[in-house]
Amino acid sequence: MQIIQATYEQLSAQVTQRQNQTANKPEIEAAVAKIIANVRQNGDAALTQYAQDFDKVSLSDFKVPQATIDAAYDACPADLLAALKLAKRNITSYHKKEITYGFMDAEQPGVIRGQKVMPLAAVGLYVPGGTAAYPSTILMSAIPAKLAGVEKIVMVTPPQKDGINPTVLTAAKLAGVSAIYQVGGAQAVAALAYGTKTIPQVDKIMGPGNIFVATAKKQVFGQVDIDMIAGPSEIGIIADKSADPKKLAADLLSQAEHDKLARPMLVTPSLELAQAVSAQVDAQLTTLPRAEIARASVENEGFIAVVANLDQAFDLMNQIAPEHLEVQVPEAITYLDQIKNAGSVFFGESASEPLGDYVAGPNHILPTAGSARFFSPLGVLDFVKRTQFIQYTPAALAKESKAITRLARVEGLEGHARAIEARQ
Amino acid sequence: MQIIQATYEQLSAQVTQRQNQTANKPEIEAAVAKIIANVRQNGDAALTQYAQDFDKVSLSDFKVPQATIDAAYDACPADLLAALKLAKRNITSYHKKEITYGFMDAEQPGVIRGQKVMPLAAVGLYVPGGTAAYPSTILMSAIPAKLAGVEKIVMVTPPQKDGINPTVLTAAKLAGVSAIYQVGGAQAVAALAYGTKTIPQVDKIMGPGNIFVATAKKQVFGQVDIDMIAGPSEIGIIADKSADPKKLAADLLSQAEHDKLARPMLVTPSLELAQAVSAQVDAQLTTLPRAEIARASVENEGFIAVVANLDQAFDLMNQIAPEHLEVQVPEAITYLDQIKNAGSVFFGESASEPLGDYVAGPNHILPTAGSARFFSPLGVLDFVKRTQFIQYTPAALAKESKAITRLARVEGLEGHARAIEARQ
Repeated sequence: MQIIQATYEQLSAQVTQRQNQTANKPEIEAAVAKIIANVRQNGDAALTQYAQDFDKVSLSDFKVPQATIDAAYDACPADLLAALKLAKRNITSYHKKEITYGFMDAEQPGVIRGQKVMPLAAVGLYVPGGTAAYPSTILMSAIPAKLAGVEKIVMVTPPQKDGINPTVLTAAKLAGVSAIYQVGGAQAVAALAYGTKTIPQVDKIMGPGNIFVATAKKQVFGQVDIDMIAGPSEIGIIADKSADPKKLAADLLSQAEHDKLARPMLVTPSLELAQAVSAQVDAQLTTLPRAEIARASVENEGFIAVVANLDQAFDLMNQIAPEHLEVQVPEAITYLDQIKNAGSVFFGESASEPLGDYVAGPNHILPTAGSARFFSPLGVLDFVKRTQFIQYTPAALAKESKAITRLARVEGLEGHARAIEARQ
Repeated sequence: MQIIQATYEQLSAQVTQRQNQTANKPEIEAAVAKIIANVRQNGDAALTQYAQDFDKVSLSDFKVPQATIDAAYDACPADLLAALKLAKRNITSYHKKEITYGFMDAEQPGVIRGQKVMPLAAVGLYVPGGTAAYPSTILMSAIPAKLAGVEKIVMVTPPQKDGINPTVLTAAKLAGVSAIYQVGGAQAVAALAYGTKTIPQVDKIMGPGNIFVATAKKQVFGQVDIDMIAGPSEIGIIADKSADPKKLAADLLSQAEHDKLARPMLVTPSLELAQAVSAQVDAQLTTLPRAEIARASVENEGFIAVVANLDQAFDLMNQIAPEHLEVQVPEAITYLDQIKNAGSVFFGESASEPLGDYVAGPNHILPTAGSARFFSPLGVLDFVKRTQFIQYTPAALAKESKAITRLARVEGLEGHARAIEARQ
């Protein structure tokens, strides 16, 4: 793994350059636009055709029967079901603390102002097919939606010749998913955004997918809401010489194995630690099943940067705004105030990143590619909307009428002023 | 104004059809992409060139001098300044109630889980030029940003031959805007998203603009966050025969005067009221300064629908999900529970929509085109981000290790399991 020793300014410039690389793929944009238009026009017929063309599957009915879901759940090995239930329990107890409420303000005479918080009526969850179908992600998205009060949680997933992964079906049942449809790709996103005879229209579409799914989500944004467009996984580690190189290397590789474009990053003031971690990464790679993917990630996307001190390490990580950030220094949690931009933070030696992927409870759907500067982890707030309301007595309106008409007229909106004067 | 008497199903189908009309303008997409690429590559030089080409203005410096802002503020007429201050006071007191905090959860032995809420570091506010420059919108966006704790609020607005509107400068000063730059169009959005030597990079871009500005915002989404893409203004009114046709007509016209594409809509069980309002709209149009705009809106986009009862009126409005909703029936506020989808709701005869545009306090930047199904009014939450964190003791991790490794291996992620086992 590459060790970079450079000035802080050089490191910082490198980070800026990486963050501003955005890809534009007009041919994919056009292909996706065509799929969306076709689904809008031809509904289920288009979906059937795409299942045949893209997934090589003939389907008479997209909906997965409840009996199939129940059978998968009942056949789930006991230890696996227990693990899923532990995850559900912790995800639920954490996300319960995110629930917000509206308010009613009657502090001014004759004036009621308020805000009502309501769940979205229906949300759609995209679950990729094959090896990228993660049961844990279903828990992470459906549980906050349930806590928000969403009544209809629709799951879509590409049709598979030998049926949907049974652990995916088990997780969906455990999380309270309302219905599962075997539809994948951009066509699934289009169906959720506009509705077909079979697939209900939803208010928000979540979940990871390939470039076609991500592009489709971006194109239907506005027609429905979407969660963020997830980029490759990232782990940033801040550590000093007290840290254990074996554990750090294992954590870096746990993210590297996701994707050749994943970004494992270590920033440390200790050259000695940097060298030891680099050697450990090489050693551990030799026995890792997904070594090919992890090696590409480590060699092309990863780095170990040696900085002058911990302050610089935090500054650099705040600029990177990593999806996951481990802080492996003594009394790690006391550095909470130094963290400005990160999706999810893991303090201390025992808080290994995969703990957060599965059972700790905070969400694992997190902002990537520097977007933790402005995006947040998925949570209950993503499944509610707010509505404002006011009521004024005639006397309360009279008190503010002059201000309203003055402002309306300075903006050239005479009709606004007259609506107020119609009350006088 | 057109009166529609149809079955509920017919009305409902008409609403669905309108909502699914989305425009796609590939030639504008391409022009905007070119502008963004140019600003990214050439920075301030590109901005200077665009100011000359598009705005016919030669600028040596984009930044509006503080002395110019102060002079505009000092010259503001007393009654106008008082009106702006009233608006600021009410916007502040309302939005203060939206402030949220993080939490720290230490309920399980050896486990700390929490969430930290932090302001965005910098936000950009686009203010259109000419007659569409609304001082009230500056208050509505900058005040919640300030309350969230945003330190840098950058305003951009197209250069004007005779200088920026002084009320805009006054509102910007009053709201706590940090700096104002004379840059407009897609190039202003690009500058805020990527930064130039003069214009700082921000984390989120807000504010209304023409199709070029809206398209640019959509294209830079992901590089920065954006507020919603605003469509034409909408007002929905639910009223029964107790309502005053004069006031309803004035309220419908107050939104119609914004834009030829604005949508004034009345739904009522009373045919008599429908006819009276329609006549009043015609009468009031004859003296309205912006009658040409308002007439186009009323005739082409507006409607009065007569339904069987109030329940149907609420159902139809929930399907429309209007930006503004007036409920003009006796004891209007008792219908709060019937409202599912609306940006901002005005209960009772005195709560005329323009009251909410200017001084009541709730935000006037609201979801349009049916997106109140899933989007919310602009507020303090739009200017913060959340970061999660955890810390586990070795014993706490040991208790959950088996569940983690079980889930990691069922997902095929051996490296994840090994990172946990490196702690044993």
